[in-house]
Amino acid sequence: MQEALPRFGFRKIAQSDLARLGEIATPHGLVRTPAFMPVGTLATVKALYPEQVKAAGADIVLANTYHLMLRPGAERVARLGGLHAFMRWDGPILTDSGGFQVMSLSRIREVTEEGVRFASHIDGSRHLLTPERAVEIQCLLDADIQMQLDECIELPAERSDAERATELSLRWAERARSAFARQAQPGQALFAIVQGATDPELRRRSAEALVGMDFPGYAVGGLAVGEGQEMMLKTLDRVVPILPAEKPRYLMGVGTPEDLIESVARGVDMFDCVLPTRNGRHGLAFTWSGRVNLRNAKHAEDPSPLDPESDCPAARDYSRAYLHHLMRSGEYLGAMLLSWANTAFYQQLMAQMRAAIAEDRFAAWAAETKRRLAGAPSD
Amino acid sequence: MQEALPRFGFRKIAQSDLARLGEIATPHGLVRTPAFMPVGTLATVKALYPEQVKAAGADIVLANTYHLMLRPGAERVARLGGLHAFMRWDGPILTDSGGFQVMSLSRIREVTEEGVRFASHIDGSRHLLTPERAVEIQCLLDADIQMQLDECIELPAERSDAERATELSLRWAERARSAFARQAQPGQALFAIVQGATDPELRRRSAEALVGMDFPGYAVGGLAVGEGQEMMLKTLDRVVPILPAEKPRYLMGVGTPEDLIESVARGVDMFDCVLPTRNGRHGLAFTWSGRVNLRNAKHAEDPSPLDPESDCPAARDYSRAYLHHLMRSGEYLGAMLLSWANTAFYQQLMAQMRAAIAEDRFAAWAAETKRRLAGAPSD
Repeated sequence: MQEALPRFGFRKIAQSDLARLGEIATPHGLVRTPAFMPVGTLATVKALYPEQVKAAGADIVLANTYHLMLRPGAERVARLGGLHAFMRWDGPILTDSGGFQVMSLSRIREVTEEGVRFASHIDGSRHLLTPERAVEIQCLLDADIQMQLDECIELPAERSDAERATELSLRWAERARSAFARQAQPGQALFAIVQGATDPELRRRSAEALVGMDFPGYAVGGLAVGEGQEMMLKTLDRVVPILPAEKPRYLMGVGTPEDLIESVARGVDMFDCVLPTRNGRHGLAFTWSGRVNLRNAKHAEDPSPLDPESDCPAARDYSRAYLHHLMRSGEYLGAMLLSWANTAFYQQLMAQMRAAIAEDRFAAWAAETKRRLAGAPSD
Repeated sequence: MQEALPRFGFRKIAQSDLARLGEIATPHGLVRTPAFMPVGTLATVKALYPEQVKAAGADIVLANTYHLMLRPGAERVARLGGLHAFMRWDGPILTDSGGFQVMSLSRIREVTEEGVRFASHIDGSRHLLTPERAVEIQCLLDADIQMQLDECIELPAERSDAERATELSLRWAERARSAFARQAQPGQALFAIVQGATDPELRRRSAEALVGMDFPGYAVGGLAVGEGQEMMLKTLDRVVPILPAEKPRYLMGVGTPEDLIESVARGVDMFDCVLPTRNGRHGLAFTWSGRVNLRNAKHAEDPSPLDPESDCPAARDYSRAYLHHLMRSGEYLGAMLLSWANTAFYQQLMAQMRAAIAEDRFAAWAAETKRRLAGAPSD
């Protein structure tokens, strides 16, 4: 008798206006949504132990195909038993396709129908990333949720460039789907990425075409690249209604706490962003009374904790004066504590969202929370 | 009725040849000796949480007067409740006097009878460190064990320079003792530092003069600055017998595991060194089968843990392949894990020494351990 194979699935548990509470089943466990995925670019969420990421409340982490294909290499990770064992994260992992990093990190690149040729930002070595190879890499990594290769273009973009890239990404989606069907493990899922820059018509066309291909989940890509929150939300307003209600929706690379709240209010289920850890390394903390710049001299003799409302030890147990000293001195522990506190803050934010949706009071919670987060002057 | 004041004291529990097992009582608790003190230069043991330092088995940490007087400033630490609260370390703290760092870090310095004038290595600001000010700073920090200001000279040194510096350090010891008597808290202790470069006669004179002043503990300074292990041990062979058996003996800035074993065999009780954390940040690990350079390509696909004999999670739970990847990628987690593993290794080494002395088998343990640590080729 054969064991039942794990299946990928999204289940909506509750809704409050457009905000959805749900869960995603993956081969490595459940993801409670709305979910924020800490970014583990190089198979580590920077300056955090995996146990801290888990304890902060994260169900799933993101890792970068572009970075891992260059170092340590996807085949090597596979020989070592896959990404979960390699980075000691036994929960679900989502990998991006590498498309975004090729655009943002590699100065030498050439996009053709076949894929994208680029030079490594590390050693200049040449690589070819195709929709098929992107899937192959993600399968070697053993990612639970994989992303199709797409072409990300910089904003603002000419309409003709945006159209060409959008159409190319659609053809790549079809090729990725075929490749994925041939080699993925049971229960793994490949998400499509809606592109189209800031053009409403292109966005609609991209979303409709991808929905027609029946992917298990849909991402909105090409945003959070400088277009501003208003344009981002406008795009969501157009795209999300086209996406099927029974599939998870993932807004890539977003964002600030306020971005997350507004996007969940529009029906988005998943997010990833480097902001909590990158800001942490730079001394910028997210707290329940607003943003705090620990490098600011006003904290030099402040014995109070970073955030008495947080149950994260980093936010609760160390004085602002000490955090200020650590950041000013360039000490590891400063980056470690603030990355931890910010990661915990983001997970607390998602937990509050989920509770508010469950109790059908998301709008009220959102209004109150936005007020609180804006409360303290940004110092 | 007044509560009994905490008293400083050293108690010898057992001896195995010249190696001593003991404990030191301080206002913040007991220190089991032989003790290795992790170095928390700027009020943090680099890349470790204080809980990890404690869990690794360290009873006491060292902090640097020179660094802390410049940043964040001793008066500031005092206003924040002292160093223990500031760095969240409720165990004993030893502070050095700043003498060594003035020599090694400040390029502009002038030694006079009064003290040493120097320019900060951070911003060039001018400071004067006298024997009295060094004690005042250490009292502001609330250090349990304090060190007299001494003049450290570079080796090799002219006999006349070494003699002048040794005599000056003796006069500073007397001044430090007077200053300490006026302002220290009950139970705190000031240690004297035996100087004299590599000159046997100067070392003897320094040790005898300081013993005559009756300090509660004695350090051997001015070693581990490039003179080599043989010369260091020769100096110990001359100095330690002069020091009183009922007082703790502290070898400053030492050293490798082999240095510690040889020095304990000669009757030394306390050590501090940046080696475990600094080496960790550079990818060099201490293990029970020898040193391991995790940056070496041979570890790239090695799924085995760093050290299966260690009970430290960093040495036990992560693969060498992953540690290699983290070090090659410059990730925080690499420095965090290897600093942690090395700190734990040093504490395990001290625990084994203490057990071997208690069972009067130190010489046999030392021979066996030196053999094991040399076993693996240094890769």
